[in-house]
Amino acid sequence: MKTLVLLALAVLLIQPAAADLFSQNDLDTARELRERALTRDGGFDVVAELTTRIGPRMAGTEADARAVAWAEELLNETGFDRVWLQPVTFPTWHRKLERAVITSPAEFDMVTLALGFSPATPEGGVAGEVAMFDDLAALEAADPAEVEGRIVFIRNRMEAARDGSGYGPAVQARSIGARVAAEKGGLALMIRSIGTSSNRFAHTGTQRFDADTRALSAVAISNPDADRLERLIDLGEPVQARIEVDAEFIEAYTSHNVIAEITGAKYPEQIVALGAHLDSWDVGTGALDDGAGIAIITEAGRLILDLDRRPDRSIHIIYFAAEEIGLWGGRAWAEDNADNFHNIQVGAESDFGAGPIYEIAARVSDEAWPVIEAIQAELAPLGIELGGRRAMGGPDFIPSAPFGMAAVDLRQDGTTYFDYHHTENDTLDKIDPEELAQSSAAYAVLAWLAAQSPVRFGSGETILDEEAARNAD
Amino acid sequence: MKTLVLLALAVLLIQPAAADLFSQNDLDTARELRERALTRDGGFDVVAELTTRIGPRMAGTEADARAVAWAEELLNETGFDRVWLQPVTFPTWHRKLERAVITSPAEFDMVTLALGFSPATPEGGVAGEVAMFDDLAALEAADPAEVEGRIVFIRNRMEAARDGSGYGPAVQARSIGARVAAEKGGLALMIRSIGTSSNRFAHTGTQRFDADTRALSAVAISNPDADRLERLIDLGEPVQARIEVDAEFIEAYTSHNVIAEITGAKYPEQIVALGAHLDSWDVGTGALDDGAGIAIITEAGRLILDLDRRPDRSIHIIYFAAEEIGLWGGRAWAEDNADNFHNIQVGAESDFGAGPIYEIAARVSDEAWPVIEAIQAELAPLGIELGGRRAMGGPDFIPSAPFGMAAVDLRQDGTTYFDYHHTENDTLDKIDPEELAQSSAAYAVLAWLAAQSPVRFGSGETILDEEAARNAD
Repeated sequence: MKTLVLLALAVLLIQPAAADLFSQNDLDTARELRERALTRDGGFDVVAELTTRIGPRMAGTEADARAVAWAEELLNETGFDRVWLQPVTFPTWHRKLERAVITSPAEFDMVTLALGFSPATPEGGVAGEVAMFDDLAALEAADPAEVEGRIVFIRNRMEAARDGSGYGPAVQARSIGARVAAEKGGLALMIRSIGTSSNRFAHTGTQRFDADTRALSAVAISNPDADRLERLIDLGEPVQARIEVDAEFIEAYTSHNVIAEITGAKYPEQIVALGAHLDSWDVGTGALDDGAGIAIITEAGRLILDLDRRPDRSIHIIYFAAEEIGLWGGRAWAEDNADNFHNIQVGAESDFGAGPIYEIAARVSDEAWPVIEAIQAELAPLGIELGGRRAMGGPDFIPSAPFGMAAVDLRQDGTTYFDYHHTENDTLDKIDPEELAQSSAAYAVLAWLAAQSPVRFGSGETILDEEAARNAD
Repeated sequence: MKTLVLLALAVLLIQPAAADLFSQNDLDTARELRERALTRDGGFDVVAELTTRIGPRMAGTEADARAVAWAEELLNETGFDRVWLQPVTFPTWHRKLERAVITSPAEFDMVTLALGFSPATPEGGVAGEVAMFDDLAALEAADPAEVEGRIVFIRNRMEAARDGSGYGPAVQARSIGARVAAEKGGLALMIRSIGTSSNRFAHTGTQRFDADTRALSAVAISNPDADRLERLIDLGEPVQARIEVDAEFIEAYTSHNVIAEITGAKYPEQIVALGAHLDSWDVGTGALDDGAGIAIITEAGRLILDLDRRPDRSIHIIYFAAEEIGLWGGRAWAEDNADNFHNIQVGAESDFGAGPIYEIAARVSDEAWPVIEAIQAELAPLGIELGGRRAMGGPDFIPSAPFGMAAVDLRQDGTTYFDYHHTENDTLDKIDPEELAQSSAAYAVLAWLAAQSPVRFGSGETILDEEAARNAD
């Protein structure tokens, strides 16, 4: 016990006071960035132009290529010191048709979207009685006789929460439901949308990236349609349905991460990496997911570019490619940096909509934690509290975690994010420029102080958050 | 002046005090109805079953026929004294296809619905530059050279209001926009949806029932799509679009008003008519429009049927046919009663969603107005205030106005009604059973006291509200 107390004291003594970590000049600059950001629109102009000119930009489409060209031009025009493209090659999938129809007791077309990488059904679809399950666990526990030759319907509901914590448990039905249904002889998988809205939109998204989770056609139906299907089944009559999907698989498409640099004045080889993803699902216009992130990090970069000096370390603004369908941009970036992670100060991706940031969390070395505390002190006027030491930096930095990269999460309020995410309803009007400005202020302060930090953030240890990684899409 | 004072005094003297109008027994029954209604679900079971078993039920479809059969069975099972069908014949229209695509500067599919009775375009659609107008008046004032060979886009926005008063001004673009565009040589009409939601749903509805307002293909695009189109045009580049519509016209289909009677004990030939419409648009499930109304008046009828005595006058629960496409059920009912309006005590239709009622207004004779005041006194505990003497009784009673029929409006809070109305998003989850119970309580009290009133409501005068009639759909 005495040893513990002594250790604790020792830790207290070697931790510098937050105020001593940064020069007054650097702190003044951080405050200037923060205050200036709040007088602007947070990069709303960027997401307005992206969603207006390009619209949805599914990885591997013509719109993806237009988005990359637009991004390169924008970042060059903005005056970054360097802008370049990093090739990213991936398999992709394009929806051509999806239908989910109740055929008996009476015909009724449901609002539906095929899940990413769903194979096509035979033409005309597959038809059978609907077998309803409360959740994935109920399907896993079911006797195959209840599933065989039927259309499997999983009805679990996602709960809204500020931190989006309802997504992980609910999304399992989407991630591996088709595999479980296939193993028990099901005809197709139909899930309640993994989203929190009662508006009549279906919610798409990927299935886990194993070939066997993608062996059966799979769709999500809108939540009001799921309600109605449940009520019909509760009336006690057998309910018949037909599911039809057509889709095209593309073996290999090459898109690009688009990277812009503010070159560091002192340690140009060391990099503070801010990310967002440029691709979107093919429905909606990708405003919240992730046009907002593109806006936020671009605005953070612009704010720093407008200073009359360069940061000590370099700052990279990274528009990742093909996040939605398997974190391909993030994987390519990690591979490209495999021998360079000692130079990556930190990674932080903005990919949780446009809600205000309420918390900073960080996966950093013990030595760097006081720096995070000092940064939080500068974020506090924005209403941002200090979170814990578990962070993943956003989905595209998950592939970098095994390399020991430090990561910061600036956590956005996601209470309504899953009302819009991955639906036709993810459009610009859902973004509030004031909230965007708060987020861009936070990213600018983080990037600046991470670039000026006297301490390196990374521990060199491999700290992969398996659960977070599983639910990131 | 002295004459006026004397007149006023005379009016005061001949107006009986509200409490003297009804027997204590009748007032006690009204209060019993009101209180009992609030312990129940307002008829939620009725709208749940209608939207679950039948779903959307566009006039002239197979689902319309199923809805009529369902209604007849329900009303018979409920124990009304008489249930019968009244044939209603009308022309109808079925959508087969609608597309609105921005083709340049880049291709983008918009969420769209054809307006009712829109003719088909040639196969493959019509294509041209988009000419944007602020509202119908701007289109009317435009030089034909600005319109000819173009796709006309009217961008006016509907404002939300408790009384739905934003609908009338905004809906003109839909009612006659196609005619004005056609006169100036436009290729097609495309309007911003006449609805108050920023969710990505298009809003359908009829055009005015003149052949020349239906001469050009016409669609509504969702409000987020209209926003994007406006922004694109504001970027200064010419915007090209393509509109494609296919639809089927049916000359004459016969559906039915479904009518249930609680036979009056004293004056069975005199009728208190409560209405709602059974048909819906072909999108959504017609929950708010007008499954809620069906629920409310059915529940009002059930509450009265549960009493241990019959009202003095008969009460009719009328499920009107084919309201959405031209008030055909209301017209048939008026024609059928052409020689009987001296026996119609009053008409009141519930067709404004499921929001709570905040006001009673009535178009009645001067002699009957004190009765309306007395009824309002019994509605006051429900939060219902006294409105004015301008009322139309709901859309299906408009055709009865020229016959001098008295009408009561129990006005519902419509602040969010036009978020859902005529869209795919009009589904059961938008209905709150508690608010439904408040409405059914009000209809039960109104029906009961109108049936027991010592005074006839009708004036015998023709009091048609032209403006209200024009905007009723």
